[in-house]
Amino acid sequence: MNERLFIFDTTLRDGEQVPGCQLNTVEKIQVAKQLEALGVDVIEAGFPVSSPGDFRSVVEISKAVTWPTICALTRAVQRDIDVAVEALQYAKHKRIHTGIGTSESHIKYKFNATREEIIERAVAAVKYAKRYCEDVEFYAEDAGRTDNEYLARVIEAVVKAGATVCNIPDTTGYCLPSEFGAKIKYLMEHVDGLSNGQCILSTHCHNDLGMATANTMAGVLAGARQVEVTINGIGERAGNTSLEEIAMILKCHRGIGIDTNINTQKIYSTSRLVSSLMNMPIQPNKAIVGRNAFAHSSGIHQDGVLKNAQTYEIMSPKDVGIDENSILLTARSGRAALKHRLQVLGMDMTDEVLDKTYEAFLHLADQKKEITDDDILMLAGADRTAAHAIQLDYLQVTTGMGVRSVAAIGLNISGEKFEASASGNGPVDAAIKALKVIIRRQMTLKEFTIQAISKGSDDVGKVHMQVEYDGHLYYGFGANTDIVTASVEAYIDCINKFKK
Amino acid sequence: MNERLFIFDTTLRDGEQVPGCQLNTVEKIQVAKQLEALGVDVIEAGFPVSSPGDFRSVVEISKAVTWPTICALTRAVQRDIDVAVEALQYAKHKRIHTGIGTSESHIKYKFNATREEIIERAVAAVKYAKRYCEDVEFYAEDAGRTDNEYLARVIEAVVKAGATVCNIPDTTGYCLPSEFGAKIKYLMEHVDGLSNGQCILSTHCHNDLGMATANTMAGVLAGARQVEVTINGIGERAGNTSLEEIAMILKCHRGIGIDTNINTQKIYSTSRLVSSLMNMPIQPNKAIVGRNAFAHSSGIHQDGVLKNAQTYEIMSPKDVGIDENSILLTARSGRAALKHRLQVLGMDMTDEVLDKTYEAFLHLADQKKEITDDDILMLAGADRTAAHAIQLDYLQVTTGMGVRSVAAIGLNISGEKFEASASGNGPVDAAIKALKVIIRRQMTLKEFTIQAISKGSDDVGKVHMQVEYDGHLYYGFGANTDIVTASVEAYIDCINKFKK
Repeated sequence: MNERLFIFDTTLRDGEQVPGCQLNTVEKIQVAKQLEALGVDVIEAGFPVSSPGDFRSVVEISKAVTWPTICALTRAVQRDIDVAVEALQYAKHKRIHTGIGTSESHIKYKFNATREEIIERAVAAVKYAKRYCEDVEFYAEDAGRTDNEYLARVIEAVVKAGATVCNIPDTTGYCLPSEFGAKIKYLMEHVDGLSNGQCILSTHCHNDLGMATANTMAGVLAGARQVEVTINGIGERAGNTSLEEIAMILKCHRGIGIDTNINTQKIYSTSRLVSSLMNMPIQPNKAIVGRNAFAHSSGIHQDGVLKNAQTYEIMSPKDVGIDENSILLTARSGRAALKHRLQVLGMDMTDEVLDKTYEAFLHLADQKKEITDDDILMLAGADRTAAHAIQLDYLQVTTGMGVRSVAAIGLNISGEKFEASASGNGPVDAAIKALKVIIRRQMTLKEFTIQAISKGSDDVGKVHMQVEYDGHLYYGFGANTDIVTASVEAYIDCINKFKK
Repeated sequence: MNERLFIFDTTLRDGEQVPGCQLNTVEKIQVAKQLEALGVDVIEAGFPVSSPGDFRSVVEISKAVTWPTICALTRAVQRDIDVAVEALQYAKHKRIHTGIGTSESHIKYKFNATREEIIERAVAAVKYAKRYCEDVEFYAEDAGRTDNEYLARVIEAVVKAGATVCNIPDTTGYCLPSEFGAKIKYLMEHVDGLSNGQCILSTHCHNDLGMATANTMAGVLAGARQVEVTINGIGERAGNTSLEEIAMILKCHRGIGIDTNINTQKIYSTSRLVSSLMNMPIQPNKAIVGRNAFAHSSGIHQDGVLKNAQTYEIMSPKDVGIDENSILLTARSGRAALKHRLQVLGMDMTDEVLDKTYEAFLHLADQKKEITDDDILMLAGADRTAAHAIQLDYLQVTTGMGVRSVAAIGLNISGEKFEASASGNGPVDAAIKALKVIIRRQMTLKEFTIQAISKGSDDVGKVHMQVEYDGHLYYGFGANTDIVTASVEAYIDCINKFKK
């Protein structure tokens, strides 16, 4: 019988802390429920002590999800653990993830401590967490650059203290697969309580040198039985190991004899949901989930594929749930069809939210003939609950080649109406200049991204913006068949988030 | 003394065959000259027999480049080799790259041949190429799935026939690093003429399971002394091994004792040039060259970096040539400043082309205050030589929220003027509907991508389009501070390429 590898997804913790990837609680619940459907074993839901928002998200995800273990991150500090325990109170299966840096650089510069003090703090944190939670995972930050002999002493001490999982992160993405595999092998051979399964080892690899996936696999082949991964490989800097790559490697290489609980046919929809909600585009040549991942282009290859698909294909697009004939909805699709499609895409919503989403759907279907899955994800992701101080009343822009762009705008600010106009370089510039005639604050547009990858000129364009105001960065989003209106909506979305 | 690893760049062959990545000859020369400045050893410039365009590109790149070896791809067919030899006539250093599939699937389904016949064809092709070219590289297609014992017989036969390099491609991206490394090791140990350096082994890995870089490194550690790579990892499906990842791994891991000739400080500008010319966006979390690759976001990490950069950084952005204080040009910058910036970005151009580019630069600088490197790449990449049948005379569009979008357009078709207007869903839809009132052909917009990742609302938006007409797909590009005008330009660019 094959051995089982546990999939620990940290999209909602390590992934979500990337600038521009922040989700609200409703969106986090959507992702968590999709991860549950995908079959992940553990969902790292947040770092509760870091902010009230993270705390609330861990609480709400704990309530919303049934099968996966919900995990909360902490430092090796009692206060962090107290807050995490409180946040996890509703989880059916819960885990505390605590730890401390173990490399020379961390011990010396970050903690100004000695090796023995670090072991004491680690043991104390695990013992403290054990009082409140049976399942305690310990991380040895920067384990990738920690010498193996000392690392084995740390791990042995925390296993004795009761850790059920020990996470060996390659925090800086420095290791070669041979090195990382050797590290896991060394620990498996030198630490009591690992080979008998009292505690399992976990990998947590970063992709700075492009080897996160291979390092993770090297760890698994050496004995690790949990992998920490994210959807689309998102995360700090160059990101984490991609869940989809590990799942498909184990599916393509049956000979390894290790199974996961992942339903690979849900990979594609999960990938799209996360990309859409987190505003992180997937490059066309991304393995497994990129637009070109299954596209054969050269004449030599096409010829081979036509003669026998196996000549050039090691897996089928169907294995990861890419459905070439995906259903499109139209203005004639009913509420039930929309609800069904939302469920297929991993989103359950209350009747009340569904009603509002259906209204928005009909409005969009009026403007464009075919509503794609991307559109639906966008509609479902929009926040329809908050009361926004500033609302766009109307916008009219004239632009083109050989004419100067000019815009007239009307805003409703807490019930009061304002109007202004301005000209600019291009329609977006004109519209935002008009907006700034009304909203006179010192704000700077730091980043402006238009995403419109579609199959028709009447498709929905999505705009992401980052505005600096009073020393803080604010993220805004807009979506509309008119890219100019979407841009103005994104800017207003930023302003509505200003803290004062 | 460290050993030397040869860098074989196939951006212009394996990368360029991806749909939407096609370059014209002028653009290919730009990339080739940038690759020369980057320090690659071999440039695979094309597959000359495949098209007159590929043939011409190999000729022109051969003329334009001095130090790197220019390599041309062929099948194991005399006609292919004849054409490649002709295309390479101006190269200072030339190489023929010939080969044949060696896996069971290729032998049986693609060639309907026996193992012995494949060896005969391979030897014959190498001997034939040797008559015209001293430097002959042989590829064993799908070597990743070829059994080692048979593969060793093929390689030994072609080494005897005179091959100077043998390429072991993992064509389907199937191998695990341990497997691929073992394959190279087996060949090094069992094939005469490898350990004495008469012939060197080359890796050519694909990224379908996310392990191209690790497989390539496993090959190098087992004895391969050439790696076939692309900038940004572009290529068929999930792409090839990334040049920048291999270069930085060897730089970060000095202990391996292997050097390349790559000037890593030119990595970033090369990456941007290729992404811009080939219309292939780089995802933010791409290792080494992604926008977030060096961005520390979490509080824990920022604290560590402030205390000591080494805590979380294994390399500095400066190592790859990311210059935070990159010079911006303005309307007051002279022709010399533009020329200098173009040279820094890897583009030399004739005075005539520079004049036209400078004109376009002044026009753009009129519209926006600061001209970035991206803008310059875009300006320099535009094809200003071709005579286009259809030209945009004027465009005027009115759009907004609460109004129906309407467009008026004027076209000049081979000297004759046409005008039309139409309304639509959003400004782009209206403008393209107006265009179609004049150009009455059965054409379908298959893909529509707006790229506008910038730091201001008056920045240049880039539009890529794919239009189907008469059974063929055509790619078009447009760039303008007005995203609507850019879209119309891209559509017209497609139409101007129609074959009839």
